[in-house]
Amino acid sequence: MSKAIPKRSQDYSLWYNELVKRADLAENSAVRGCMVIKPYGFAIWEKMQAVLDGMFKETGHSNAYFPLFIPKSYLSKEADHVEGFAKECAVVTHYRLKNSEDNKGVVVDPEAKLEEELIVRPTSETVIWSTYKNWIQSYRDLPLLVNQWANVVRWEMRTRVFLRTAEFLWQEGHTAHTTQGEAIAETKQMLEVYANFAENYMAMPVVKGVKTESERFAGAVDTYCIEALMQDGKALQAGTSHFLGQNFAKAFDVKFAAQNGELEYVWGTSWGVSTRLMGALIMAHSDDQGLVLPPMLAPIQVVIVPIFKGEEQLKEIVDHVQPYIDELKKAGISVKLDDRDTLRPGFKFAEWELKGVPVRLAFGPRDLQNKTVEVARRDTSEKQVVDVDKVVEHIKALLEDIQQSIYKKALQFREENTRKAESYEEFKKLIEEGGFVLAHWDGTSETEDKIKNETKATIRCIPLNAEKEEGKCIYTGNPSSCRVLFAKAY
Amino acid sequence: MSKAIPKRSQDYSLWYNELVKRADLAENSAVRGCMVIKPYGFAIWEKMQAVLDGMFKETGHSNAYFPLFIPKSYLSKEADHVEGFAKECAVVTHYRLKNSEDNKGVVVDPEAKLEEELIVRPTSETVIWSTYKNWIQSYRDLPLLVNQWANVVRWEMRTRVFLRTAEFLWQEGHTAHTTQGEAIAETKQMLEVYANFAENYMAMPVVKGVKTESERFAGAVDTYCIEALMQDGKALQAGTSHFLGQNFAKAFDVKFAAQNGELEYVWGTSWGVSTRLMGALIMAHSDDQGLVLPPMLAPIQVVIVPIFKGEEQLKEIVDHVQPYIDELKKAGISVKLDDRDTLRPGFKFAEWELKGVPVRLAFGPRDLQNKTVEVARRDTSEKQVVDVDKVVEHIKALLEDIQQSIYKKALQFREENTRKAESYEEFKKLIEEGGFVLAHWDGTSETEDKIKNETKATIRCIPLNAEKEEGKCIYTGNPSSCRVLFAKAY
Ligand SMILES: [Zn+2]
Ligand SMILES: [Zn+2]
Repeated sequence: MSKAIPKRSQDYSLWYNELVKRADLAENSAVRGCMVIKPYGFAIWEKMQAVLDGMFKETGHSNAYFPLFIPKSYLSKEADHVEGFAKECAVVTHYRLKNSEDNKGVVVDPEAKLEEELIVRPTSETVIWSTYKNWIQSYRDLPLLVNQWANVVRWEMRTRVFLRTAEFLWQEGHTAHTTQGEAIAETKQMLEVYANFAENYMAMPVVKGVKTESERFAGAVDTYCIEALMQDGKALQAGTSHFLGQNFAKAFDVKFAAQNGELEYVWGTSWGVSTRLMGALIMAHSDDQGLVLPPMLAPIQVVIVPIFKGEEQLKEIVDHVQPYIDELKKAGISVKLDDRDTLRPGFKFAEWELKGVPVRLAFGPRDLQNKTVEVARRDTSEKQVVDVDKVVEHIKALLEDIQQSIYKKALQFREENTRKAESYEEFKKLIEEGGFVLAHWDGTSETEDKIKNETKATIRCIPLNAEKEEGKCIYTGNPSSCRVLFAKAY
Repeated sequence: MSKAIPKRSQDYSLWYNELVKRADLAENSAVRGCMVIKPYGFAIWEKMQAVLDGMFKETGHSNAYFPLFIPKSYLSKEADHVEGFAKECAVVTHYRLKNSEDNKGVVVDPEAKLEEELIVRPTSETVIWSTYKNWIQSYRDLPLLVNQWANVVRWEMRTRVFLRTAEFLWQEGHTAHTTQGEAIAETKQMLEVYANFAENYMAMPVVKGVKTESERFAGAVDTYCIEALMQDGKALQAGTSHFLGQNFAKAFDVKFAAQNGELEYVWGTSWGVSTRLMGALIMAHSDDQGLVLPPMLAPIQVVIVPIFKGEEQLKEIVDHVQPYIDELKKAGISVKLDDRDTLRPGFKFAEWELKGVPVRLAFGPRDLQNKTVEVARRDTSEKQVVDVDKVVEHIKALLEDIQQSIYKKALQFREENTRKAESYEEFKKLIEEGGFVLAHWDGTSETEDKIKNETKATIRCIPLNAEKEEGKCIYTGNPSSCRVLFAKAY
């Protein structure tokens, strides 16, 4: 707490790492690439989960749970899927340890070798579609609208807490439908759910779009996504929703008897968001003093710091504020009274700033006399002295205002950093400066690859709201009918 | 749905398996020993989680998340722990697959061998205490009150859905304290939380007790537990709370600076319940018609089955019941209207009975005329015709009554099946008949082992409320100061 965190302008990456650590969000564990999510960080994730879970249920989904392990052979059943997912993953080969001969430790028992290796799930399409085969016989069994909250493992070589970790937490929805149209509608509906969550809870504006073929989920016909812009000008994919066509139904032979009695393959979707959202949330709003949390997702919305000398004065202040704490709690606002008597107010202010608590109240002896309280908002650092009798109404309005303000600030940042490039020269210059770049592209993976190799920029998506605009590909000059969204990305 | 499930009296084990499957609770997956928890079963587990999570938070605990993988060497650090847990577990040895030479599948890449194997957590004491070492410096960092909801894997050879599976879901609390007394108080507090949950939510009476040395958790100083009696006369351990002493603190070198400045080892506890509770819930109350769920944990508390001929009559009835549905929902009661038009009422009645919905309403054309409704309770099968205007109040009271009744029924069953044995002959006869047997024991593991080998009965616990009673061990005749609780167990 004594040292300030590095400034964003000096070293954005170090700022992020230090912030995650110092705000008690998460840390690297002794297991390479696996993180420990600390209680304060997990409390934010729990808030995210609760909101999303409610949204999934409102749209008719139920939760279920499928096995952690996938038989190796399952991965090979869908040709594209195995290319995308079978490579970097944790492989279980044995099921027993035994004492080592020197009796000082344990070793793998060579006799306990599995006949078929098991893969720790990197995503669950294969194990779920092999299960759906038994759940689906007729159109009456459809749609099947299931979600799972789970841990998954992808053996990433370069890891970064929340953004890219070997193990992460996520939800994965897996649905099955009678028609193509219904499955596409589901895919789009879940994209809207994610966009709604990102914008109205995380206060993070997103671009909704479709991935190009080369960025598509392995096994999908179409991958929809939401893309957000971080403060360093890099894009972050915050959620994806995949229309799977009949690919997994064919790979796992999942058919249903239609109303006319004919057997048809089922249409599928899958969609997911992960603890990566924690990284997005941190990077979207936080500043050089620490976290800035949107009130909707803040585990502590209001912190009260009493300013006192001696135990008696502390007690007097605590007695005085208790009714306001009760009233705030009754209004559904989470409040923490920081009555630690070993730390000075300035230290506490800095700590709660670091942890991103949206509103801080300071209560001193003079406030007792004047029936006032000092209210500070985290996002702008503005302070105001308020009549204590009006503080509950004031805070309610303030929390809403903060939620709106940080969204608007992030939106303004994105708008200022979304630019159009008319030539490849201009494109390279803009990409180097950071931000989203809208440019014409000829629609080929070849061009996309070349641009990526030369500039490190990828096509984040073809925006759903892209206007029809005839133009020429910045790279090849070939015709293009709309601009796509480029950026360097996390 | 067409066939009835087997009767408990014919084959209890088959009854259980069929019930789990037919009520859509869970099923075995293609991965040996791993289950799929289906949406209806998972909805019950979610209710359990929500209640328990609330209780943990009320007692000051926060959730966090620790890695799925444990370095092999960690398991060896606590001597007893490795004996208990290092043996039957899933071992990750590689981190990559590659295309096979015939290009028809994938094989483990021998070049991607881990330097140190990783164990899929069978329980997380080791990885958590290795983390706590960095979180704890001073008495100000204590108590540390953390819980984790997670999946764990123990490579069981004989598995049974919910009761014993290779992968299962659970919560594991891990706390750290400055004093022995505080850690013991925490251990006992969490035992009370579990007992409260079992009795007041699951409607399942439990005996609170302490495990004997040989049944203790590997690495614990004392293991407290709650034990329930199933309808077949076998005991089921429904939750455990461990006082770990300083064992893990010493194994992972976790010390804190006390107020007097001296460095001392931290005192620990851990406590857990798992999806095993689902098995307990099913076996405690269900009958030959299917599940019987306590209203507190039923995903659907009230089902409404309209009795109709033709679409028009269905519409009339649905319009008529809608205000009551709204009113029930407003009162926090979960209601399902079964308006499927392809199934007959009798079929629906049987299905909701099988699924254990506590209250069923049947609404026919005559009820429209008479302003009545038929109310049936699942636990006793009693039916009653009720004035429709009083139905909401009636249901509220009925749900409470059902919750109480099934608890009382289970308690009565347990009392009738808890008997005292005064000799080994009598003991063997009673154990063969089933149920709990209270008997004197000389306190040695040797005697405990012999009794277990000869009768398959284990000491479930030394009940916390055991009366002082001088007696002689049923096996050796050696002196004993209280009776312990024996049973055959799941
Ligand atoms: Zn995109
Ligand atoms: Zn016991």
